[in-house]
Formats: sequence, C-alpha cells, structure tokens
Amino acid sequence: MIFRPATRQDLPAVLALLAQDDGPAAAGPPEPAREPVSEAHELAFAAIEADPRNEMLILEEGGVLLGCLQLTYIPGLGQGGRERALVEAVRIRADRRGGGLGARLMELAADRARERGCGLIQLTSSKRRTAAHRFYERLGYTRSHEGFKLPLV
Amino acid sequence: MIFRPATRQDLPAVLALLAQDDGPAAAGPPEPAREPVSEAHELAFAAIEADPRNEMLILEEGGVLLGCLQLTYIPGLGQGGRERALVEAVRIRADRRGGGLGARLMELAADRARERGCGLIQLTSSKRRTAAHRFYERLGYTRSHEGFKLPLV
Repeated sequence: MIFRPATRQDLPAVLALLAQDDGPAAAGPPEPAREPVSEAHELAFAAIEADPRNEMLILEEGGVLLGCLQLTYIPGLGQGGRERALVEAVRIRADRRGGGLGARLMELAADRARERGCGLIQLTSSKRRTAAHRFYERLGYTRSHEGFKLPLV
Repeated sequence: MIFRPATRQDLPAVLALLAQDDGPAAAGPPEPAREPVSEAHELAFAAIEADPRNEMLILEEGGVLLGCLQLTYIPGLGQGGRERALVEAVRIRADRRGGGLGARLMELAADRARERGCGLIQLTSSKRRTAAHRFYERLGYTRSHEGFKLPLV
C-alpha cells in the first residue's frame, strides 16, 4: 500500500470517493464511478496542492484508490509554537470498509503529522455517526469537544 | 472599535490574553500581564502572519486589546470549491466579558470569512464549557459534530 499526496491525475477518483456516503453502513458501488471534474474542483485542488499547509493524501494499492483524507497544518501560538493538524474528508472505499484500512489510514496521517512536528491532531465527526466515534476512540482520540458549524452561504 | 490582523507589536498583549483562563466564570486580572515572548512564539506568530490562509485577528478600542481569535481558511473539494473558515484561540479580556463583545467579535469573524467567499465557519469548544456552547448556539451555530483530539507529543 502506498500513502502519498494526490496528484491532478487522481482527482476524478478522489471526487468519486468523496461523493460516496461516508456512513459506516453505506453500501456504495463496488467500483467508484468517475465524477465529472468541474472548474471549481480544479481550482480547489490546485489551491490544496499549492499550499504548503494542506495535503490531500491517498491510500492506494495496485493503482486502486482505497481511501483519502485531507490534512491541514495550522500554525498557532499555543503548544510551544507547534502546528496542529486538522483532518477533513476522510473516506474509505465502500467495498473495502471493515478490514482495518480506516485505522491504517488514520495511523499514517498521525505519523505524518508527528514527523512534521505537530503537537496535536484533531477532527470532527457528525453526531449521527456513532460507529465512527467508537472508531476514533479506539485509535486513542479523546472526544473532548463539541463541534459547531455555521453556513455562510 | 477596530478589528484587524495583529502585528508583531501586539504579540505580548495577545499572549497575555491567550494565557487567561477562557472559562466564562474565570476571574482574570483586570489588566493582562505581559507575557514573555519566547523564540517559539516569535516563530509561530511569523508563520501565521506570513500565511495567506491564517490570520490572528484582534478587537481593540483606544489601544486596549479587548479580544482575539485566529481564522484559518481551508481549501477543500466540497462545498462547490469554497474555503471553510476554522476559528481557534477565541478570547475576550476577563474584565470585559458579559457585555456582548464576544458576540461582536464572532460576528466580525463570520463577516470576514463570508466576504472572503467561505462557505462555512466552524469551531470546537471543550465539552466542559457549557456556557460557551449556549453562546455559539445563540449566534446561529449548530452543535452538529463531536470534536476529537489526539496529542502527538
């Protein structure tokens, strides 16, 4: 298995993966359909790729995309000046869930953030996704915070 | 009142504010003591200032620092390619809490993120801070997520 930043060539497969329902019980298509790549997607991916504090990371095996997540490295005045890593857009292919790939992906992400020198890794998960909460707690995460969101558009 | 990005000259006062207990019932000192500025603080502040997707923002009046927060603008493939804004390090001076300054600061932050084109603004708040949760809900935020953290050091 390879864990690496996604390139522009990976973008259609990554969009297809992100479009899959991320609920643990979701029965997604065995082979992700290719999503059309809009100009907004192109621009957003280029912004991630050009930003030294953002990475769209993928887990693949034999050319097959198994999972993805985005890491954002946030500078801050706390924690002795160490960055914190924020995790967003976590997905495992629907037909490969339940076999430990999610745990592997999250471990690789934490290792990457630790090697970079981050003091903390954090994420939020919808309150409806109770199986995901147990998953993160098994990985050592503490459910210490409430997550608030406000749409701006 | 002025709402603007902090400069290097503001750093000692910002560090003093961040060092105040952020609990709503905290009785902090009426005049924030000046924190010594370590090299780690200098480097972290320089990283925030140099990053076009990070801002340490302050609210001041007559040269007095009333509050601060950090905004991080995160590019992503969701939301039609719009950035999301993450809020961290929210503080209001201990001797000026309870008078609506926190709401004003959060409104200014949301306006700034909206003007930039962000689709969403989000934050996490410690589960112990129940008064803060009601505060964010009054501002229109939805407590939709669980917040997970894992120390890396």
